[in-house]
Amino acid sequence: MEIIDGNQVATALIEELKAEVSTISGRKPCLALVRVGEDPASVSYVRKKEKTAAEIGISSRVILPPVSISQSELVALIDGLNADHSVDGILVQSPLPKQIDELAIFRRVRPEKDVDGFHTLNLGKIAQEDESGFVSCTPAGILELLRRSQVDLNGKHVVVLGRSLIVGKPVALLALQKKAGANGTVTICHSGTRNLAEITRQADVLIAAIGRPEFVTADMVKPGVVVIDVGVNRVSDPTRKTGYRLTGDVHFPGVSPLASKITPVPGGVGPMTVAMLMKNTVKAHRLGNLARSG
Amino acid sequence: MEIIDGNQVATALIEELKAEVSTISGRKPCLALVRVGEDPASVSYVRKKEKTAAEIGISSRVILPPVSISQSELVALIDGLNADHSVDGILVQSPLPKQIDELAIFRRVRPEKDVDGFHTLNLGKIAQEDESGFVSCTPAGILELLRRSQVDLNGKHVVVLGRSLIVGKPVALLALQKKAGANGTVTICHSGTRNLAEITRQADVLIAAIGRPEFVTADMVKPGVVVIDVGVNRVSDPTRKTGYRLTGDVHFPGVSPLASKITPVPGGVGPMTVAMLMKNTVKAHRLGNLARSG
Repeated sequence: MEIIDGNQVATALIEELKAEVSTISGRKPCLALVRVGEDPASVSYVRKKEKTAAEIGISSRVILPPVSISQSELVALIDGLNADHSVDGILVQSPLPKQIDELAIFRRVRPEKDVDGFHTLNLGKIAQEDESGFVSCTPAGILELLRRSQVDLNGKHVVVLGRSLIVGKPVALLALQKKAGANGTVTICHSGTRNLAEITRQADVLIAAIGRPEFVTADMVKPGVVVIDVGVNRVSDPTRKTGYRLTGDVHFPGVSPLASKITPVPGGVGPMTVAMLMKNTVKAHRLGNLARSG
Repeated sequence: MEIIDGNQVATALIEELKAEVSTISGRKPCLALVRVGEDPASVSYVRKKEKTAAEIGISSRVILPPVSISQSELVALIDGLNADHSVDGILVQSPLPKQIDELAIFRRVRPEKDVDGFHTLNLGKIAQEDESGFVSCTPAGILELLRRSQVDLNGKHVVVLGRSLIVGKPVALLALQKKAGANGTVTICHSGTRNLAEITRQADVLIAAIGRPEFVTADMVKPGVVVIDVGVNRVSDPTRKTGYRLTGDVHFPGVSPLASKITPVPGGVGPMTVAMLMKNTVKAHRLGNLARSG
């Protein structure tokens, strides 16, 4: 059994991006990070993104509207960033306050600057196998992690647990693409699936993204399976100082002895997400330059 | 075994649309049909669409540019229709001549008038379960056919053969939606799938859309399966006057005795496609009116 080390892969990717950015003459890529309010998790995520951007040589612009911001004010803010030629990518940190229509905001970001890949047009481009779009960071990170771990999906049965817009559906569409590294047969399971274990036991590659702690147990997988655990769940743990520990959607102690490769939580998919955001930002900068010179 | 009669279902749907259109005061829905050149199949398809529109009370405008039309001329033609407030839906009949970038033309049609559902944005909306978009006619017709044949996909294992943009992928995304009639567990198979029969034998509902005549045989299905045959293949048949007969992707004589319900070819999915185009056109008219009055 091999543990897929997301930190190591992300670090390699960040080094490559750093090298790429260092060759850019003129204006460096710029990422606008919009964080509404002071949600502690959001504060920490945005800080991490800012730090990683700086490490690569991507400039970032952090915008901190108050939690009371209205829909129209936030729309105006996005429109300003959309029009600003010195901004390549725009990330609006989720979750947004209750008064905000989140989907409308994600769709307001110009598709060409939508480095989070949440825009309807960018989702459609995954289905169309159109590489001019942006793939949302977690599914893109999963495919990158598989590729760099020498897992080729060609001819494999990929079972995706969960049909979310952010992970399940896009990762299924990516695994299905007719291109090198992908070309898998894909099954998507969810809360309404009957005989779930019967299906997951057929998986050559199992991607768990349902947000239920340690849901996937040893009896649900076949020996030799590759397991990608997307879950990040807090479970209470009185032995820890914090009172909790993080766990994935997979029961690691039970499943890992059966797996040929498996991602841990934390340290698996998580670190890839920020790295892919940076990769998308560098791509947005490159495509923007092409468009301006074209 | 029950044969799902696509002609009958399409006729019922057309009657409903006719009743709906008759209640519209003021301008009736209008469909622009763009047919480039004189491909005999296209001539026949467009004529059928025109005729069905007239039957419902939808006005149609047939535009017949020459086969030599350039990309920019066709784009200008589409732009004109996009801007024309008396046109609700635009259909560009496929295939287009070699000099035309077909995908670029399909994307040029305003998403609000894209009654064929080929625009990236409308594809993305299927994934987002956003009902404001247009679902392409064949997958929409399949779901309508299932619904009106009392086949509920909830909890069922739906196996889709084929991953095309026009059928396989959208029908998979529709079957997966978390709503009444759908909510299926979905597997998508294709030319790269190993142990195909092992997977298709698990299907409660099998949707065949690979364009290979009589590919699905009796040994590939389980008793009681519901079979939707999307294939329309010409195979040579010297006993016919035409020299050929039409066959689906399913070996009907072998598979039908095992099936609980099955669509024939012709007379199954085919008639639904034109009916759904009309349904989309009426929807475009309704949404356009809402937008203008809103």
